Amino acid sequence: MMQKRDWPVDDVRRFLEPGPIVLVSSAWKGKTNIMTMGWHMVMGEEPSLVGCFIWDQNHSFEMIRKSRECVINVPTVDLAPTVVRIGNTSGAKVDKFERFGLTAVGGRKVKAPLIDECHANFECRLVDSSLINRYSLFVFEVVKGYARVAPKFPKTLHYRGDGLFMVAGPTVSRYRTLFTREMLRA
Amino acid sequence: MMQKRDWPVDDVRRFLEPGPIVLVSSAWKGKTNIMTMGWHMVMGEEPSLVGCFIWDQNHSFEMIRKSRECVINVPTVDLAPTVVRIGNTSGAKVDKFERFGLTAVGGRKVKAPLIDECHANFECRLVDSSLINRYSLFVFEVVKGYARVAPKFPKTLHYRGDGLFMVAGPTVSRYRTLFTREMLRA
Repeated sequence: MMQKRDWPVDDVRRFLEPGPIVLVSSAWKGKTNIMTMGWHMVMGEEPSLVGCFIWDQNHSFEMIRKSRECVINVPTVDLAPTVVRIGNTSGAKVDKFERFGLTAVGGRKVKAPLIDECHANFECRLVDSSLINRYSLFVFEVVKGYARVAPKFPKTLHYRGDGLFMVAGPTVSRYRTLFTREMLRA
Repeated sequence: MMQKRDWPVDDVRRFLEPGPIVLVSSAWKGKTNIMTMGWHMVMGEEPSLVGCFIWDQNHSFEMIRKSRECVINVPTVDLAPTVVRIGNTSGAKVDKFERFGLTAVGGRKVKAPLIDECHANFECRLVDSSLINRYSLFVFEVVKGYARVAPKFPKTLHYRGDGLFMVAGPTVSRYRTLFTREMLRA
């Protein structure tokens, strides 16, 4: 197991604002599932809100709508083939943790399992279901976060559509001096 | 001027799904403005929808709410200092096109100006203002797109908060063969 530490829920932007493809894990009636997701955004820091587009044709859609929980997991480039294969298969037919050799770890605040192999994991509760019908938009509050101790900045995958991934390049601090103080964390 | 070509509105994910920081330009009552934005997501392809979090303390907030238009511009790493400086200054006090030496180009479908120096530009109309009060969420439809002819995959900036940017790494096609055919463009 990779060593992880708690990650503050008011700083999920560190990992999510750069726009990585993520794996969303869920549990409902004794079964688990995983889906790949590229359409998501940070919507607030206190409370920590994340908006997620979950297509109603995904098997995860009803599992998450009914359980009102999920975990947003951030995979890195070493998991790229698994990320694609998870998107190719339906949880209606396949136990994706078993099929893809992923390790389900129990959440602390939700029943949905964390994917241990991912760099960061965010336990989420559905706090607004009113936009699901109109936009397939789930508004989650992140209630618990975890991130690997190293590397500090993971090589995440960023989907461009049509089978193409941008792989995260270096994280640079050289522009930090240009920011006004109130734009930076205390 | 950099050579650009029309970019299909149903494929804005190519540039926006990887999660770059963007510059949002607007016009209202003879004035223009630019803001930096990191919280946005693709919300549909037909019609082409993009959800954007615009804080009500931004000078652009009322300009976009009233004009019901904007342009989403995708800057590259060479513009990093300008991106930060745009975020540091308020359009209430500064003409940002003039201050930062940016070229305003007239839009074809909206009155908001495009920023010529950016790799891609997406003219947007506000199609749903009902989530602005609750979530500062503007739902736009992209009505016209443009992208530079080269490079094919721009070195975009991806904000991590706290003054740190991830710079886009290489775009790879090596996982494309793993996708089922229906996951790829025709």
